[in-house]
Amino acid sequence: MLFKNGEKILFTGDSVTDAGRARPVGIVGGLGSAYVAVISDFFGAFCPEMRLPVYNTGVSGNTSRDLLARFDEDVIALQPDTAVILIGANDVWRQYDYPDYTERHVYPEEYEQNLRAMIDKAQSAKIRVILMTPFYIEPNREDPMRKRMDEYGEIVKKLAKEYGVLCIDLQKPFDKYLQYRYPAFVVWDRVHPNRIGSMLIAREFLKAVGFDGFW
Amino acid sequence: MLFKNGEKILFTGDSVTDAGRARPVGIVGGLGSAYVAVISDFFGAFCPEMRLPVYNTGVSGNTSRDLLARFDEDVIALQPDTAVILIGANDVWRQYDYPDYTERHVYPEEYEQNLRAMIDKAQSAKIRVILMTPFYIEPNREDPMRKRMDEYGEIVKKLAKEYGVLCIDLQKPFDKYLQYRYPAFVVWDRVHPNRIGSMLIAREFLKAVGFDGFW
Amino acid sequence: MLFKNGEKILFTGDSVTDAGRARPVGIVGGLGSAYVAVISDFFGAFCPEMRLPVYNTGVSGNTSRDLLARFDEDVIALQPDTAVILIGANDVWRQYDYPDYTERHVYPEEYEQNLRAMIDKAQSAKIRVILMTPFYIEPNREDPMRKRMDEYGEIVKKLAKEYGVLCIDLQKPFDKYLQYRYPAFVVWDRVHPNRIGSMLIAREFLKAVGFDGFW
Amino acid sequence: MLFKNGEKILFTGDSVTDAGRARPVGIVGGLGSAYVAVISDFFGAFCPEMRLPVYNTGVSGNTSRDLLARFDEDVIALQPDTAVILIGANDVWRQYDYPDYTERHVYPEEYEQNLRAMIDKAQSAKIRVILMTPFYIEPNREDPMRKRMDEYGEIVKKLAKEYGVLCIDLQKPFDKYLQYRYPAFVVWDRVHPNRIGSMLIAREFLKAVGFDGFW
Amino acid sequence: MLFKNGEKILFTGDSVTDAGRARPVGIVGGLGSAYVAVISDFFGAFCPEMRLPVYNTGVSGNTSRDLLARFDEDVIALQPDTAVILIGANDVWRQYDYPDYTERHVYPEEYEQNLRAMIDKAQSAKIRVILMTPFYIEPNREDPMRKRMDEYGEIVKKLAKEYGVLCIDLQKPFDKYLQYRYPAFVVWDRVHPNRIGSMLIAREFLKAVGFDGFW
Amino acid sequence: MLFKNGEKILFTGDSVTDAGRARPVGIVGGLGSAYVAVISDFFGAFCPEMRLPVYNTGVSGNTSRDLLARFDEDVIALQPDTAVILIGANDVWRQYDYPDYTERHVYPEEYEQNLRAMIDKAQSAKIRVILMTPFYIEPNREDPMRKRMDEYGEIVKKLAKEYGVLCIDLQKPFDKYLQYRYPAFVVWDRVHPNRIGSMLIAREFLKAVGFDGFW
Amino acid sequence: MLFKNGEKILFTGDSVTDAGRARPVGIVGGLGSAYVAVISDFFGAFCPEMRLPVYNTGVSGNTSRDLLARFDEDVIALQPDTAVILIGANDVWRQYDYPDYTERHVYPEEYEQNLRAMIDKAQSAKIRVILMTPFYIEPNREDPMRKRMDEYGEIVKKLAKEYGVLCIDLQKPFDKYLQYRYPAFVVWDRVHPNRIGSMLIAREFLKAVGFDGFW
Amino acid sequence: MLFKNGEKILFTGDSVTDAGRARPVGIVGGLGSAYVAVISDFFGAFCPEMRLPVYNTGVSGNTSRDLLARFDEDVIALQPDTAVILIGANDVWRQYDYPDYTERHVYPEEYEQNLRAMIDKAQSAKIRVILMTPFYIEPNREDPMRKRMDEYGEIVKKLAKEYGVLCIDLQKPFDKYLQYRYPAFVVWDRVHPNRIGSMLIAREFLKAVGFDGFW
Repeated sequence: MLFKNGEKILFTGDSVTDAGRARPVGIVGGLGSAYVAVISDFFGAFCPEMRLPVYNTGVSGNTSRDLLARFDEDVIALQPDTAVILIGANDVWRQYDYPDYTERHVYPEEYEQNLRAMIDKAQSAKIRVILMTPFYIEPNREDPMRKRMDEYGEIVKKLAKEYGVLCIDLQKPFDKYLQYRYPAFVVWDRVHPNRIGSMLIAREFLKAVGFDGFW
Repeated sequence: MLFKNGEKILFTGDSVTDAGRARPVGIVGGLGSAYVAVISDFFGAFCPEMRLPVYNTGVSGNTSRDLLARFDEDVIALQPDTAVILIGANDVWRQYDYPDYTERHVYPEEYEQNLRAMIDKAQSAKIRVILMTPFYIEPNREDPMRKRMDEYGEIVKKLAKEYGVLCIDLQKPFDKYLQYRYPAFVVWDRVHPNRIGSMLIAREFLKAVGFDGFW
Repeated sequence: MLFKNGEKILFTGDSVTDAGRARPVGIVGGLGSAYVAVISDFFGAFCPEMRLPVYNTGVSGNTSRDLLARFDEDVIALQPDTAVILIGANDVWRQYDYPDYTERHVYPEEYEQNLRAMIDKAQSAKIRVILMTPFYIEPNREDPMRKRMDEYGEIVKKLAKEYGVLCIDLQKPFDKYLQYRYPAFVVWDRVHPNRIGSMLIAREFLKAVGFDGFW
Repeated sequence: MLFKNGEKILFTGDSVTDAGRARPVGIVGGLGSAYVAVISDFFGAFCPEMRLPVYNTGVSGNTSRDLLARFDEDVIALQPDTAVILIGANDVWRQYDYPDYTERHVYPEEYEQNLRAMIDKAQSAKIRVILMTPFYIEPNREDPMRKRMDEYGEIVKKLAKEYGVLCIDLQKPFDKYLQYRYPAFVVWDRVHPNRIGSMLIAREFLKAVGFDGFW
Repeated sequence: MLFKNGEKILFTGDSVTDAGRARPVGIVGGLGSAYVAVISDFFGAFCPEMRLPVYNTGVSGNTSRDLLARFDEDVIALQPDTAVILIGANDVWRQYDYPDYTERHVYPEEYEQNLRAMIDKAQSAKIRVILMTPFYIEPNREDPMRKRMDEYGEIVKKLAKEYGVLCIDLQKPFDKYLQYRYPAFVVWDRVHPNRIGSMLIAREFLKAVGFDGFW
Repeated sequence: MLFKNGEKILFTGDSVTDAGRARPVGIVGGLGSAYVAVISDFFGAFCPEMRLPVYNTGVSGNTSRDLLARFDEDVIALQPDTAVILIGANDVWRQYDYPDYTERHVYPEEYEQNLRAMIDKAQSAKIRVILMTPFYIEPNREDPMRKRMDEYGEIVKKLAKEYGVLCIDLQKPFDKYLQYRYPAFVVWDRVHPNRIGSMLIAREFLKAVGFDGFW
Repeated sequence: MLFKNGEKILFTGDSVTDAGRARPVGIVGGLGSAYVAVISDFFGAFCPEMRLPVYNTGVSGNTSRDLLARFDEDVIALQPDTAVILIGANDVWRQYDYPDYTERHVYPEEYEQNLRAMIDKAQSAKIRVILMTPFYIEPNREDPMRKRMDEYGEIVKKLAKEYGVLCIDLQKPFDKYLQYRYPAFVVWDRVHPNRIGSMLIAREFLKAVGFDGFW
Repeated sequence: MLFKNGEKILFTGDSVTDAGRARPVGIVGGLGSAYVAVISDFFGAFCPEMRLPVYNTGVSGNTSRDLLARFDEDVIALQPDTAVILIGANDVWRQYDYPDYTERHVYPEEYEQNLRAMIDKAQSAKIRVILMTPFYIEPNREDPMRKRMDEYGEIVKKLAKEYGVLCIDLQKPFDKYLQYRYPAFVVWDRVHPNRIGSMLIAREFLKAVGFDGFW
């Protein structure tokens, strides 16, 4: 697996990551109830010998602008070996649910700058970066918010390539899954995956990092 | 306007109608916080001289099967002059968000039978019926749940014609509106309209019944 | 309409404006449940193409003295294009419900000074000011609190004229409405309009600013 | 005083009497927080030697129709020596705050019948009846709801005379008081007296029954 | 009456005075539910023309040591015309309910010093002082806590005489009352009077200040 | 010890016994937080080998009249080996805290009858009875409520003798204790012992039944 | 896999199964938060095409005696294709945490009878039965409660063999897991598995029924 | 007894000591609901003449590292005559329930240093120190967490000997008790004793300090 025994893995981002985690960052209830917890469950249940502590510093409602503003405190200062960043859903969503409050929008150019700043900070601190693409669980690729989200996903992929960091495309597994089920089965608002959606994200992450312990 | 002074108007259906109304049926908080309340506000503010009492017996989660089961108690017994029925969203939705629990699904044939039974009951009791089509605030007409909802809407229209009752197509105004705004602006789950969506339904209803008092 | 596309409109004042809005100033629940929300609903539903963001910084219990004290922070700093001010109800009310606690009273002279200071601040910051008169939903014009409120309304009108800003008289529509209905129908304490009263205020505002989109 | 030592006095009516009393009828918190409690306080503090137990069976929202329906259970069955009846505010109020829901209105003819039925029941059970007039704390006697309430008060007085029972006019002391203070000082909605209003009712009652123990 | 029209009267002390008053000092709920509110009710109901604003800065659990520590902020800074001080119950009680925690006890010598300091502060600020004796609603004068409380009461009386300020002995009316009723009728713990006990205190205060308006 | 291994011991009575026990009678939280729990703690900690299950069916506010009414259901039906009865505090207290509500009083004659009926029922069912005297933690034996409680205690002792059942005098240990500490140290209202008072009752019970395991 | 497409699978038992599921049996929150939900997540995420509805009728605190008493209503009446039974933890636990309340204990003989009765009922109704052994997450096999639980597990295995139904031994995977981690990592009381423990149970179940879809 | 009349005794540590005590340190509810309260009950009930005030500054979740960090504020500053320290359970537990979060672990060497620092601080301030060994209510001495806890207990004993302070071994009484009952009877997680477990600790403490007053 990508991680060595005992390495600290920190996930950060918005409400998809946060999922009701306890504050301040801690061990009791500290992982929230979504994909971060499921990944930690897999580690704990199926490769306990690796001793991989998992942290979650997602904050609901955050855009990349908000995350950058607290990146020193909520990522760098915690000194993880790996930082997994999943951000961008709110950068895009605000353009669609609060289209008139433009001060809340984060457009692609700024999004890219914010991501670059975060990656630079992390790499300066010798933290391995993993990027995950923001996603929108909408099967119609011509849907305007879906198209917009795809643009942001492309930025993530471009930067991952440029910086040479691992990139996990989370849109892809949902697209594949939606061939079998309607979005309402895994998500109530096409943004926040339910338990089943979290399982799908967890599997995608585990595959990407070379976890191989389920059976 | 369609209604004469002093006539009682009762709205019934599922959570779109219910919207947190008080129980039992009453005057304080009895209208919920969605389109029924907005319609009543328009009546109260702009044609108070008509003295139109409004009632709401929507129940969250109801399918047409559930509504039929309580139709005598929650519609007939209250002796309204008009009963406005908006049902079907859950008949369809359960086929998409809980696809495996088939005992919760209400398919088109049963849906039509349920509606017929309700109209028959109401007409026997000399209650004027107004039907509103169930809707799905999804602009992509090829979306499977949208297509399915349209089927149910067609049944409503067919029955309205057959029975000669007023039919208000609520899908149409949303379709028109979605040319200007993304669904997330008026609805978080494409089913339950927010305040703005309620305003759109209210206007459609008011137009249909010949209300002419806004300015 | 008075507003150009994309302009920011901020409403401020006391509990009539506040109406349970979220704190701090924000987008989720940020408009409260009274007239500000209704106006925003009309904009959102019937002229979405104008993209008019609406803000609410009303604070329950405020007199003009309290509002002036926070005007820099809660109006100027938010840089709206238009500031709509509705204040004065508590300046008057405290003289009637807590007549002995004179330190809580704001008499006409101070009221006028406070309003002047607010208008000056706004105009220095190039913010368009709209004044709305405080009102008391009491049909008896000889009632002492009604007479007192009318005095404060006159001050608002006088200043609006002097400064050349738009003034919306909210007492007038309620007076007209009370020819048809008793106050208890739109207000429980003659101060805080209910949903129907909010609808009446909203219409008056919309008329005044040239909104023309309902049908 | 009218009451002999040890006599049981029961107050019944609507929310003005209820005032948050405990349920079921009991001794802890059983008197509510309004005029009934104040009267009991005066008895307890200033004529403890008389040992006068006080009961409260007011129910918020009741009209005379509702009170009659529970009169056997909530008055007769408790076997008081005296029953004090204060009812009618909601009979009138519903005609003004919910004018269109006519099934909630109790008009003068029915009001009189309801009162007669209650007095008959009480007298058959050898219970002394005291009637108190419903009131509306509105100084303008031309106000329509005030005029209407006065009509109901007249019915009470007429019946008191006819049946030869003590009648306490509660409108009068409020009218006198309003020469000194604005209604908002003693009542927030002109219907439910606050602590000071309760004190005024208590004094009126105590005067009427010949209490003479304050100093 | 001792007070002139419009004078501000502030009551301060411990839980007997506090009685659940709102914080910070304010007008809504600011008087608590015990004797201060009852006195204010009498003023409001029976001499409204005097316009006497009443304030309450009692704090539950306070000893004279605690009250002295906040006297500048909670009495002097509010600039009342009269300050009514009722303190000492906790100075004594802690010696009996927490006898081993001697750091919580305030013995007579310190009690006297604390009172002197408060009176000096008030008089320097030209505030009229009224002292009320702490009391213990225990009829047995040989009871040790009763005897102790009497000692503290004597200190209050001595200081009142020395400073020439009005002193209201609250033990006396309770002693007299206990000839007719058992303590449990007016107090559950012999320290915190219930509604009836509050009425007794209020009457004693009103008598002492020359109030004469009940009938 | 009086009890044999495995015997079921049931305590019943009023709030002194109840002490917040769970309902219905059960094992989790079923013992309340007062003396019954402390006795069970002693059994559990210091003679676990005896395996003595303890039950609590006290009900707050009960008089002997109330307890008799539910004795079949709450004592006999549970088939304990021993029933410990502590009742009478409310029979007396109501005569002092609600002296005018005479229907709530249980006077000595009825008290004795109620106790006899309970003992008869228990003995018919072959249940060993232990009586505990009601008590009042008031050191002044001339206090009227104390004297009254002593009368009731005497009835308990008389019946115990007559029926030949064990009687535990709980007034005695409190009287002895009050030589060292003021009542407020063990009880806030002279009726409901706190943790320390519960310890005193527990010790008295343990002594009486021959428990000998503490050290 | 053992299940055919569309088959209904019902899990029943005690708190390990219940895990806070909604009541009455339903679709929203109906699966609780423990192993049943995890199994359903795997089905939903990795073999959606099979359309397997999952039900949960576990009830916290139940012994086999309690489960048998409601088996008709909570299993048979719901007509599942498969009923998975996990019961026995409380049958054993009560012997250890409430050893003296023997009426709460279910000993092996009764346990076996209860299980037989349930299997008979299910098989008569043509419901496939799967038995899971109760477990105790205690690595020390000489621990008395562990030994006792093993006895109950043996009964389950014996009956499974006798009736020819699938038996899933849940003790085994925990025993294996405890070679790597201390019990506190997967369970706080050695009875209720946490998220990680639920994952282990889910895997064991999935293996046993031939699920093969994770990667 | 070890303590002289009037001496202040402070207990500090983790959740075993804390047990829900009020904050800040105070007299009402200040002792929590576990062993500290039971010890104080024994003092209060059986040697009131000694007047021993008891304090509790335990904090749930604390390790020795956390306790050392607040030792000046929560022990030294309160100036007790005796400080009783019970710490170490979390130092060990975190190694077993959160084995991967190594920054939360406190290993033996640091544990010893932390204890030394606390003892030094206390002795410099002339405070008598009593050490209690951390314990684990697990009868199997080969259990890894039990063995680990024993190591920490040995450190406590070693330091007690070296510093010449009283050491109370709390593991011993539990070990002895577990010969009669299973751990679940006195503790739900083998760490936090229930009421019976608290009784056992209290007795051990009382024995150690020479308390001799129970009978």
